[in-house]
Amino acid sequence: MNMRIAALDFLGVAVTPKTNWCFILLRTEGGLTGLGECTLSGQEALLAAEAARLAAEVVGQDALARNRLARLLPHAPGGLVTHTVLSGFEQGLWDVAAQAAGAPLHALLGGALRGRIPLYANINRGVAPRTPEGFAAAARRAVAAGFGAVKLAPFDPIIWEDHEGWRAGYAQGLARVAAVRDAIGPKVALMVDAHWRFSPGAAAALIRDVAGLDLFWLECPVAEANHAEIRRLRSMANERGMRLAGAETLSGLAAYRPLVEGGLYDVLMPDMKHCGGHEEMRRIAALALTAGVEIAPHNPTGPVCHAHSLHACATLPNLLPLEVQFGETERFFSLCEGASLHFDAGAADVPVLPGLGVVLDEEGARATPWQAQRVPWLDPRLG
Amino acid sequence: MNMRIAALDFLGVAVTPKTNWCFILLRTEGGLTGLGECTLSGQEALLAAEAARLAAEVVGQDALARNRLARLLPHAPGGLVTHTVLSGFEQGLWDVAAQAAGAPLHALLGGALRGRIPLYANINRGVAPRTPEGFAAAARRAVAAGFGAVKLAPFDPIIWEDHEGWRAGYAQGLARVAAVRDAIGPKVALMVDAHWRFSPGAAAALIRDVAGLDLFWLECPVAEANHAEIRRLRSMANERGMRLAGAETLSGLAAYRPLVEGGLYDVLMPDMKHCGGHEEMRRIAALALTAGVEIAPHNPTGPVCHAHSLHACATLPNLLPLEVQFGETERFFSLCEGASLHFDAGAADVPVLPGLGVVLDEEGARATPWQAQRVPWLDPRLG
Repeated sequence: MNMRIAALDFLGVAVTPKTNWCFILLRTEGGLTGLGECTLSGQEALLAAEAARLAAEVVGQDALARNRLARLLPHAPGGLVTHTVLSGFEQGLWDVAAQAAGAPLHALLGGALRGRIPLYANINRGVAPRTPEGFAAAARRAVAAGFGAVKLAPFDPIIWEDHEGWRAGYAQGLARVAAVRDAIGPKVALMVDAHWRFSPGAAAALIRDVAGLDLFWLECPVAEANHAEIRRLRSMANERGMRLAGAETLSGLAAYRPLVEGGLYDVLMPDMKHCGGHEEMRRIAALALTAGVEIAPHNPTGPVCHAHSLHACATLPNLLPLEVQFGETERFFSLCEGASLHFDAGAADVPVLPGLGVVLDEEGARATPWQAQRVPWLDPRLG
Repeated sequence: MNMRIAALDFLGVAVTPKTNWCFILLRTEGGLTGLGECTLSGQEALLAAEAARLAAEVVGQDALARNRLARLLPHAPGGLVTHTVLSGFEQGLWDVAAQAAGAPLHALLGGALRGRIPLYANINRGVAPRTPEGFAAAARRAVAAGFGAVKLAPFDPIIWEDHEGWRAGYAQGLARVAAVRDAIGPKVALMVDAHWRFSPGAAAALIRDVAGLDLFWLECPVAEANHAEIRRLRSMANERGMRLAGAETLSGLAAYRPLVEGGLYDVLMPDMKHCGGHEEMRRIAALALTAGVEIAPHNPTGPVCHAHSLHACATLPNLLPLEVQFGETERFFSLCEGASLHFDAGAADVPVLPGLGVVLDEEGARATPWQAQRVPWLDPRLG
């Protein structure tokens, strides 16, 4: 089969008024299409441009030459955008290689260690109204659907804890967490994502304030670069019975190395869309394994990232439950054909069809092209 | 094709009065045979026993399930023997997977970055007499055969520098290095392997004593566990224009992590026979790449390890020349059929036949079964 790359197409899809998903479609001269996801909220135009730049480089190349084509560039000038497109491209290379081999993608990764992947429900995008009661109701729906673990990001109205109004936002956030814990009872695991909203000192106060709510993990309390502070916060959290999790937007083994060396996190959250793809996800997980660190891949976006994450998770020894968006949009289940991506009692079957196992409904996707979002960007403290 | 494991055979072969090579032959029910090498001098009986133990565990399993079958056990009670057999087994799994795919092994690793692998000649086993003149003559033969880099282990009569007679042995060793440098001239790279013979203080003196001989690297001056001392010796060596190399007997990414974290070596030398096989070799090389450390795989043994090393080296970005034994025995070139393993002007072609690309002449191998060697084992200082 002719495995030369014939085209690398970018396709952004609006699936809710607030959410776009973005995909890479890698076409071979032999007629295969490999799928990758490169969703990065608010950066759709940059993703499209970077995909076009990359396409000019790779059209005509051998799609099986992953080592040559999908190497992470340590000084890629595009930063996260470049690495996200490269990650989506790497996913597509694996998809076509597995299709050509007639085997599910996980078989090319060395075979599955498990056939079912445990999931946790990120309820954040399916909550309305965003009151404590609204969060509690969404959490109850997740538990009713069979999930044994629920995550929310309760502090998002806060941009930074020094911003005006942060005390009210902080109290509201704590009330949301308490309402969810009350709704799900003591047996369901609860995770809180703080989305880097806090200074180390405020994060220390947060750890004390949530200590009675039995969190499985606290995620991203402060900016990722604060290594010494994160190490200290991890000790504080561990003293109170909760794990510290983070590092969802990093790319490449080299970026994860200092986090493992420094003992910063109990749980690392590499994302198939940003970390470099399958090879780099496996390297990061293997490095983490040497230090007893666990992997819970970041995966709150679309069905293609989800399918790739399922194949990857099937092969990782040090796996914690995989994230899924819960209650955001039914297009998660209808945008692709092939293997079922439905959540079944808080778990998912690893696809067993050749390749990735799912095919994008291109016509349906193109019917709702990506829409520019207005995302708060500047630090409000700058006025 | 039926890819269940039907048998895992161990085969040890005497190729010189001083040298045995050991192999794993992995048979599938579908009739494929995968080859791995697990040579570990003086441990042949233990290797055979461990291979039999492993065979009982893996017969009937799916040979494509590498992630499940070839995982390095962090607390494997057999230590290096266990990991060496496991490494040979992992090589065999890759060989049958690539045969089944009809592709050369390197294609399953993501494709070759280069078609020719640079080699350096380890002349140590082909020297007689072991005088400075004998070493110089062997080095001249390697240069005449096209090699641009030569390595010797000149201090092997020394067991430890405190042992009686070490001063004479040390002087003899320095004379051997000087004679080789004189024989090969200034343009051929020269490496010296000290085989862990020295204390840190004596190694520091060694670095000063060879500083005028323009070494490309000094290898393994002290025991691998002396991290802080090795770091210091590396700085001393770098100050004098030579690299520090080592770590040929470690197994698994976890074992290599502290060496990279600690900045111990310029060059790491994982061995396909001990490190865990292809997957672990790639992980180690990727980790090394994050720190600017280079990889020169240890490979002074038989043709199967050599063939696997060629496939691996084809895919590593941070590759330095691969080791080969030079002038030890012509059986290196005659024990296997398939791809040519001949050294051609100091380089080798990456095999392009399906699988590993070479098949063991089992009948010829069985004609000279492995012979027990008397290897000095106890520390002579203990009397």
